[in-house]
Amino acid sequence: MADLDVVGIGNALVDVLSRESDAFLTAQRLTKGAMQLVDEGRAAELYAAMGPAMEVSGGSAANTIVGVASFGGRAHYVGKVRDDQLGEVFRHDLAAVGVGYSTAPATTGPSTGRCLIVVTPDAQRTLTTYLGASVHLGPADVDRALIERAGILYLEGYLFDPPEAQRAFRTAADMAHAAGRKVALTLSDPFCVDRHRAAFRELVERHVDILFANEVEIRSLYEAADFDAALQQARRHCAVAALTRSELGSVVAAGDEIHAIDAHPVAQVVDTTGAGDLYAAGFMVGLSRGLDLATCGRLGSLAAAEVISHVGARPQTPLVELARGLP
Amino acid sequence: MADLDVVGIGNALVDVLSRESDAFLTAQRLTKGAMQLVDEGRAAELYAAMGPAMEVSGGSAANTIVGVASFGGRAHYVGKVRDDQLGEVFRHDLAAVGVGYSTAPATTGPSTGRCLIVVTPDAQRTLTTYLGASVHLGPADVDRALIERAGILYLEGYLFDPPEAQRAFRTAADMAHAAGRKVALTLSDPFCVDRHRAAFRELVERHVDILFANEVEIRSLYEAADFDAALQQARRHCAVAALTRSELGSVVAAGDEIHAIDAHPVAQVVDTTGAGDLYAAGFMVGLSRGLDLATCGRLGSLAAAEVISHVGARPQTPLVELARGLP
Repeated sequence: MADLDVVGIGNALVDVLSRESDAFLTAQRLTKGAMQLVDEGRAAELYAAMGPAMEVSGGSAANTIVGVASFGGRAHYVGKVRDDQLGEVFRHDLAAVGVGYSTAPATTGPSTGRCLIVVTPDAQRTLTTYLGASVHLGPADVDRALIERAGILYLEGYLFDPPEAQRAFRTAADMAHAAGRKVALTLSDPFCVDRHRAAFRELVERHVDILFANEVEIRSLYEAADFDAALQQARRHCAVAALTRSELGSVVAAGDEIHAIDAHPVAQVVDTTGAGDLYAAGFMVGLSRGLDLATCGRLGSLAAAEVISHVGARPQTPLVELARGLP
Repeated sequence: MADLDVVGIGNALVDVLSRESDAFLTAQRLTKGAMQLVDEGRAAELYAAMGPAMEVSGGSAANTIVGVASFGGRAHYVGKVRDDQLGEVFRHDLAAVGVGYSTAPATTGPSTGRCLIVVTPDAQRTLTTYLGASVHLGPADVDRALIERAGILYLEGYLFDPPEAQRAFRTAADMAHAAGRKVALTLSDPFCVDRHRAAFRELVERHVDILFANEVEIRSLYEAADFDAALQQARRHCAVAALTRSELGSVVAAGDEIHAIDAHPVAQVVDTTGAGDLYAAGFMVGLSRGLDLATCGRLGSLAAAEVISHVGARPQTPLVELARGLP
């Protein structure tokens, strides 16, 4: 029997956030809203140009897993840091919310990965990632007994960038299916989809039970002219697709069952970092409890609304408390 | 001629902030609002008990110096980190606001110092400091040419805890006076005053031109029954005393000249960390520009109001912009 709700696997990163003007993005040749992979030298150059920053634990799947725990779900994370100070910060912040985390840190090689996040006055976030130690995540870090313990295996698309992590991803997905577990995937980023479109399509058709994507990502996956065209493709190819559209809410599709879920109201959008990550958290918590798909979507919207109302990609108010206020 | 407004010397720390309940303070035997020094083992134990945290550069005098730069002042900082990741974070965040910082990092010994900050629902902050590499700051780190360049030398009382740093403090004060510069001191913390009362009294009488203290600290210094009794002592002993009283505002005294300055209005007090540090920044910027003492106090109140309106002890809005709104 599954004694965990969700096991998530992802690139383990510490976020380094600063607020900058749009002119900063232009000067640094950054594409607003996207994630760009860079080497250590370019990361150091961009960091030097950034204003005073704050450091908070991040990583897309890690944010989701923390969200699951914040709802009171039982969650575990797999991802690679180094045995350095930022790795210790990452480890602390998982333990502090009750997330299991047992991946051995790298003891040699690059330092803990970092995601440099520039937040512009429109609350949009632009990501520049130095993967660091997370490139060393590999199949050996995937523990079959752990994967079998969780009802849902959650994988981030970003894992496709480092080759060893992609192998870990496929290994874990095979283990989960062999044990009769569900496999969930988030497409992560439109440029990530561009880099791996054929592989993602094949995955979604054959190996993914629950797909998370925002509008730009799902359109990129199917090279679709508009959202509805992408939606019709997604319906054909995966059991459950949860497609997010920022302030337009989300659409949840499972074959002939389709729900249009409103965005949860937010007093002020401060920083959109983590919106998709937390939507996935709420949605999977709902699935784990056997709730109907519309309620799963509403839990996703609730969690996303919390995380965009402040700086940083992890909840600052226990989501289990906010969920009590839902009708 | 002085080409710098302020040089500050202090314990170089990275702040680790989490929000906790009052029960957490009780369980961890922490005194609300105070600063407690601990060793590495106790710091690790407390960190393990704390919830998810964010890391931001801190250090009392460093916060003040960043505030001076944020007003457009010319400022330099002296303090010791190690050559590790948190040391790099500390260095980046000074450079990012244009503060000069040339103290060589320690290459052996303890890691960069940390201040574990627990913020309770009343916005009060409770500090637990592991000094780490900052204990290695010593007289050799004090550069006479640098001290002579600044109109004001700003020293934090916390420097009295590590013996070598106390020697650095005295060395710098002597250099400043020999060059005809002003020496400013903040008493930092009532327990710090308790630990070093005799030395602080002697300093204030003989070596300090500008004294910063909050109500609890100044009463502790003179073991005074109430604020007014402490004020009358402070008037006798230092050329300028700027005494802060939270929402009651501040009192600025210079011999027979006394001003009662209102607190600057704040929509919501979120985290009081850095209030005193930023008050000192505004006040010294005013002095550097030859403004009258009441205006110096108002600049201090303005800066303190900015920093208590968000989490973290460094300004998030350029103070030079806020100062334009003053009458």
